[in-house]
Amino acid sequence: MEREHISRTYDAELGEIRSKLLEMGGKVELMINNSMKSLVERDSDLGEKTILFDHEINNLEVEIDEKCIQVLATRQPTARDLRFLTLALKIVTDLERIGDQCAAVARRAVELNQEPPLKPYIDLPRMAHWAAVMVKESLDAFVSSDAELALKVCKDDPFVDELNEQIQRELLTFMMEEPDSISRGIKINYISKCYERIADHATNIAEMVIFMVKGKDIRHTTPSQ
Amino acid sequence: MEREHISRTYDAELGEIRSKLLEMGGKVELMINNSMKSLVERDSDLGEKTILFDHEINNLEVEIDEKCIQVLATRQPTARDLRFLTLALKIVTDLERIGDQCAAVARRAVELNQEPPLKPYIDLPRMAHWAAVMVKESLDAFVSSDAELALKVCKDDPFVDELNEQIQRELLTFMMEEPDSISRGIKINYISKCYERIADHATNIAEMVIFMVKGKDIRHTTPSQ
Repeated sequence: MEREHISRTYDAELGEIRSKLLEMGGKVELMINNSMKSLVERDSDLGEKTILFDHEINNLEVEIDEKCIQVLATRQPTARDLRFLTLALKIVTDLERIGDQCAAVARRAVELNQEPPLKPYIDLPRMAHWAAVMVKESLDAFVSSDAELALKVCKDDPFVDELNEQIQRELLTFMMEEPDSISRGIKINYISKCYERIADHATNIAEMVIFMVKGKDIRHTTPSQ
Repeated sequence: MEREHISRTYDAELGEIRSKLLEMGGKVELMINNSMKSLVERDSDLGEKTILFDHEINNLEVEIDEKCIQVLATRQPTARDLRFLTLALKIVTDLERIGDQCAAVARRAVELNQEPPLKPYIDLPRMAHWAAVMVKESLDAFVSSDAELALKVCKDDPFVDELNEQIQRELLTFMMEEPDSISRGIKINYISKCYERIADHATNIAEMVIFMVKGKDIRHTTPSQ
């Protein structure tokens, strides 16, 4: 009975880490969407809010890290749980850095909103949308140990890369024709690269999930002598 | 005696992780320097070698990850060792991504070497040098738990950011005056951002080291009920 109680609280601890990670993922998705919205709708207030919101992401990183380390210290997990915890530690770092990217986008959006618009944004919102979907799916793949879904995320990445390259080519043509647009063009270029980096983070998470699910099993290892 | 033996092999395992991390750090430093050299000396062979060398870094990431997980599984470390291992897991990810950045620089260098040089590189090699020093010092800070050195790394980061911004400003002026230079200017701009990202990775490592050294101690925590 006592043993069952311990086991249940252990499961509860792992479940809490899982749900905190999903909470962090949801907030990061919101940041991706709001950073884009602050640019497309020229909403600098939303941009400023997005910059400030990054603190919540940073706090969640510290909180989840601590929970993982506490479970590692007190439960001495093995095998599957151990892989889950070590990967959670890596994933929160990716999520935190996605938050940094969104804040960086929002800062550029606030700057761009003070100047005349360069041209309507078409591909950039598509990139942001895809990046957000990839982040969501990479986390879903993690919490459900779904290698198939993780593979889908990896396969989506070249699509975002292609959008980024297309945006860069268009901006290049634009800047060559109108040197006055170069300063704004470089900022939009930077924003495009931020979403590409966010998609890279999602891909990194997905790759780690595939390795977790398909990688070699450590349950049968013994201490080296 | 038996116990002492186990303890000594445990220390040996931690020592091996430490030295593998330093080996990985040394190889990453080499990549930083060689990616820059392939650009400045227009050495595309070195560029191609640097791109291929990235595999070694990727392999070291997997190897160190596995070692950390194995020690976590078999030694059930607590407190200080646990912090060391969880941080090592995060740091290898940063090192692996620095390798990616160097390979990306080398790819652009190979492309740029096929076109006439835009202008002599002065600040870019300085950036690469600083980034390499920051990576080395952040790892030294980690293996010796030296919060002071880690703080120095964090304080050096704005200097690299400033160099990056200066390079961008110069390139912008250049591109506005000579639209023909825009395509090359954007590639150099990209390279400059890669070194800035490398310095960011070093700063991230240093920040985690400070948190490890000064963060709250988990030795006295008990399983939550």
